Amino acid sequence: MSFRRLSTERVYTGRLLKIDRDRVELPNGRATDLEMVRHPGAAAIVPFVSDDDILMVRQFRYATAGFILEVPAGTLNPDEPPDACALREIEEEVGHRAGRLTKIGAVYTTPGFTDEIIHLYVARDLVPVAQRLDHDEVLTVERLPFRRALEMIRDGGIVDAKSICALTLARDLAAG
Amino acid sequence: MSFRRLSTERVYTGRLLKIDRDRVELPNGRATDLEMVRHPGAAAIVPFVSDDDILMVRQFRYATAGFILEVPAGTLNPDEPPDACALREIEEEVGHRAGRLTKIGAVYTTPGFTDEIIHLYVARDLVPVAQRLDHDEVLTVERLPFRRALEMIRDGGIVDAKSICALTLARDLAAG
Repeated sequence: MSFRRLSTERVYTGRLLKIDRDRVELPNGRATDLEMVRHPGAAAIVPFVSDDDILMVRQFRYATAGFILEVPAGTLNPDEPPDACALREIEEEVGHRAGRLTKIGAVYTTPGFTDEIIHLYVARDLVPVAQRLDHDEVLTVERLPFRRALEMIRDGGIVDAKSICALTLARDLAAG
Repeated sequence: MSFRRLSTERVYTGRLLKIDRDRVELPNGRATDLEMVRHPGAAAIVPFVSDDDILMVRQFRYATAGFILEVPAGTLNPDEPPDACALREIEEEVGHRAGRLTKIGAVYTTPGFTDEIIHLYVARDLVPVAQRLDHDEVLTVERLPFRRALEMIRDGGIVDAKSICALTLARDLAAG
């Protein structure tokens, strides 16, 4: 069961988003046109500021018409390895440098229409540094018990998919 | 802390994807252009075929260049309520009618560039019906213990974000 790309066309190039429309022969032998948002990938981090507490961000998201609670995350720069991106985002978004970074997984956010993959980490041994936000990032940092964050998945206080994935894998890591 | 949409422009209309570029005044008072993939929403389901076992689909995803294991899911039709979509997708993708549907949550898949929200359900009291796949859906149904699916989140066997969210919330539901 394999597939073949028969042709590709870049049908949209925006400020951040790029869309390809590819003609693909599917593993069932049929040919179809597939639209795909091409994404450079991202990194998301569960930063432990103590044995019990983590840092999250309450971030304005236009897509949700308000603020939602998320783990710090960001898009890979060109040629940037995912772990370097993770360390950079902890510094920029929540103002800490991490002494220890553990990869806990990677997820496809929505494989039906984008190749975005988010690499997931736990960070420890944090020391404060200056926070550096982009001009269009509107967020505040919140410190909360890791246990509370897990409760907030259940009670609907956390609705961001990458954050739920990262917290779940961090829980699994803690459970051994 | 509020925001205002200053203008909107539909900059891409494809077969499935639509992109708006909106001029937005952010809650910090700055104005910026934001690209947003407009999505009708979706539903994803953890279907229990017995007390212990669930049904998942091993689906070809061009974005991942192969097959990945996912919970059954699909996009809302125009004016379709999420629970109706969930019941329809269980029938079409895994060939079962569900007698009982429980909403367990809803997640934003990637709020940085799309308003896609996926409504999450547990389905029970399944009876077999005919499976009806779209011509571009290439998948096989797999029955596996729910406990095994949770292990596969940890060991990297499941990398689809909505599936990890749905399974995590289903576990939380089972745990009470």
